[in-house]
Amino acid sequence: MEPFEVQILGCGSAKPSTRHNTSSQLVSLRSKLFMVDCGEGTQQQMARYHASYARLGHIFISHLHGDHCFGLIGLISTLGMLGRGHAQSLHIHSLPELEGLLRPQIDYFCREMPYEVVFHPFSYDHAEIIYNDRSLTVQTVTLAHRIPCCGFVFREKPTPRHLRRDMIDAYEIPISHRGLIKNGADFVTPEGDVIPNERLTTPPTPPRSYAYLCDTAPTETVVPFIEGVDVLYHDATFATSDEGRAQATHHSTAAQAAAIAARAGVGKLVLGHFSGRYDDERPLLDEALAVFPNTVLAREGMKIEVNKNCE
Amino acid sequence: MEPFEVQILGCGSAKPSTRHNTSSQLVSLRSKLFMVDCGEGTQQQMARYHASYARLGHIFISHLHGDHCFGLIGLISTLGMLGRGHAQSLHIHSLPELEGLLRPQIDYFCREMPYEVVFHPFSYDHAEIIYNDRSLTVQTVTLAHRIPCCGFVFREKPTPRHLRRDMIDAYEIPISHRGLIKNGADFVTPEGDVIPNERLTTPPTPPRSYAYLCDTAPTETVVPFIEGVDVLYHDATFATSDEGRAQATHHSTAAQAAAIAARAGVGKLVLGHFSGRYDDERPLLDEALAVFPNTVLAREGMKIEVNKNCE
Repeated sequence: MEPFEVQILGCGSAKPSTRHNTSSQLVSLRSKLFMVDCGEGTQQQMARYHASYARLGHIFISHLHGDHCFGLIGLISTLGMLGRGHAQSLHIHSLPELEGLLRPQIDYFCREMPYEVVFHPFSYDHAEIIYNDRSLTVQTVTLAHRIPCCGFVFREKPTPRHLRRDMIDAYEIPISHRGLIKNGADFVTPEGDVIPNERLTTPPTPPRSYAYLCDTAPTETVVPFIEGVDVLYHDATFATSDEGRAQATHHSTAAQAAAIAARAGVGKLVLGHFSGRYDDERPLLDEALAVFPNTVLAREGMKIEVNKNCE
Repeated sequence: MEPFEVQILGCGSAKPSTRHNTSSQLVSLRSKLFMVDCGEGTQQQMARYHASYARLGHIFISHLHGDHCFGLIGLISTLGMLGRGHAQSLHIHSLPELEGLLRPQIDYFCREMPYEVVFHPFSYDHAEIIYNDRSLTVQTVTLAHRIPCCGFVFREKPTPRHLRRDMIDAYEIPISHRGLIKNGADFVTPEGDVIPNERLTTPPTPPRSYAYLCDTAPTETVVPFIEGVDVLYHDATFATSDEGRAQATHHSTAAQAAAIAARAGVGKLVLGHFSGRYDDERPLLDEALAVFPNTVLAREGMKIEVNKNCE
C-alpha cells in the first residue's frame, strides 16, 4: 500500500513563540506532495525536516490570516532559486483575493523565475471538490472563524480489488483479462465455466482520508463532511480553562475538538494550532483524551500515517 | 556609558538552511532599538532572543531581495497583535518601491491594526544621512550588488566633556554654568580668576560607530565612508575557494571582507551572510584572520558591543 502521510511543519497560532511555528503541513500520497497552509518560516521547516521541494505541486490555503500564508512568497522565491523548471508550475488554491495580494510581489521579487505560479480561486461559502486527480480528491468544508475560512478533506479514491496470485495461476487467466477482474468482473473459462470474482480477488484496501480543520469554533456543520475520516487535525488553540477566549476568537478548546472527533467517528484526532500561552500542552491532551481516546498532540516534524484504524 | 550593541538575528544567505536564518539584526543605542534588514522568520528570532518588540522604532532595508525583507509583513502584523498603540508608528527606510509592494498587504492583513507604518524612501545611488536624532545618525553607503543595494553606517554623535566632580565642588560652580563647561567653556570665579576648561573636565567618550555592509562585491569605494568605524559587519558569503561564485553573484569572500576592513582601519570585523554550502564557517574565519586579526564569525543570537578598541 502506498504511504499516505501527513507531516506537521507548524502547529502554533499567530503570535510568535519559541515552542511552535505558524501553521503549515505536508500531505504526501504516492509520489505527490501537497501543502496545507504556509505560515512564515515554512520553507525553513521544510529544510529542517528534509522535505522535498521538488515534489510539491499544490498548496491549499485555509484562510487569509497571516499566520497561514505569510510564508508563501519566500517559498515561491526559493523554489525558483532551487531551479524549479518551467514545466513544473506551482498551484495555489485559495480565496480570489490572494492572487491580487501576492502577484505584485511575485512579479517584482521573482521576475527571473523560470516556473509559473497558478492561482486557483474558490469560494469559501460552500463545500466543493477543488482538486481531483487519479488517486485523490480534496474537498473544502466551510468553518466558523472570524473571516471566511475552510477546512480540507483529502480522500483517496477507491482502489481496485487485489488479484489472488494462486487463482490467476490456477485458471491461467490472460493478462488482458486481469484489469476487468480487478474491477469486479467474473472470469469465464475457455470451457464456459463462470468463476465468480470473489474467488479470484480479495477486497480492495479501503480508501483512506484525512481532514484538516484549523482555525474554527466548534461547529456541528462539519460532521457530515468528516464522518469516518481516518485522521482529523482540529483546532485546539485553547484549554477549557480559557474557553471564553476561544469563543471570543472563534477558536476551539481541546475538549471541543475531541467532541467533534467523537461525533464524526474519526479514527484518530490530532490536536493543533496551540496558543503561545501554554508552555506545556499536556493539559490540552488530557482534556481531549477524556472525550476521545485516540488523540495525540501535534508537534513540529511529526509524521502521521493515515491508515484505517490508525494507531 | 550607554550600551551600543548589535545583535545578530540572521546571518545566512538566501537559500534556506538549518544553520542560519536570513538577514536581520538589531542595533541598540540608549533606549532605542533599530533593525537592519528583515528576512523571513525575523519576528520569531526576536521571540527566541527575547528582543523588545516595543522599543523597535525604525527598520532599514538594504535592498529588495526577499531574504532581506520577506519578514516585514509578519513583523508588522505581530506588532499590531501585541498591542502597539497609535502613538507609536513604525518607520521603514528603503527604496520607494517597497511601499507599493507592502502597502496592499498591510491594508488587507492588518486593517484593524492601531498603529501606523510610515515609509521613508531614499535613493540608493548616493550616500546620504537618512536618520538623525539627538544621539545618532545613520548614513547610507552605495554597495556593488546585482540590484541597487546600500550599507548603513550608524554613528553616535559627539557627547559633551565629563565634569570633574572634585573641581565642581572646589570652585563651587553653580548648576547653571555646568552645561556650558561640559561643552568646553572656561569658568570665571566671582574673584575674576579664569579656570581653564581642561582643569574642570575630562575628555568626552569618543563617539562610537558601526557599519553594516551586507550583500556586496568587495569595493574600495566604501572605504572613505567606513574609515575607522569600531565594528564592521561585512558580506563574507563565500570562501576564497569559491571566489568565482562570489564574483558571479556580486558577493565577497571572507578574505576580501578582511582586506576592506584592513584598508578602512576598522576596530573589529564581523563576517556574515554565509552561503548555505558550508557546514562549518571556520575556514572563512581562518582566511579572514590571516588578513585582519580582529575578526569574528557572526552567529544567530550573538551580541556585539560597539566600543573603541573593540575586543
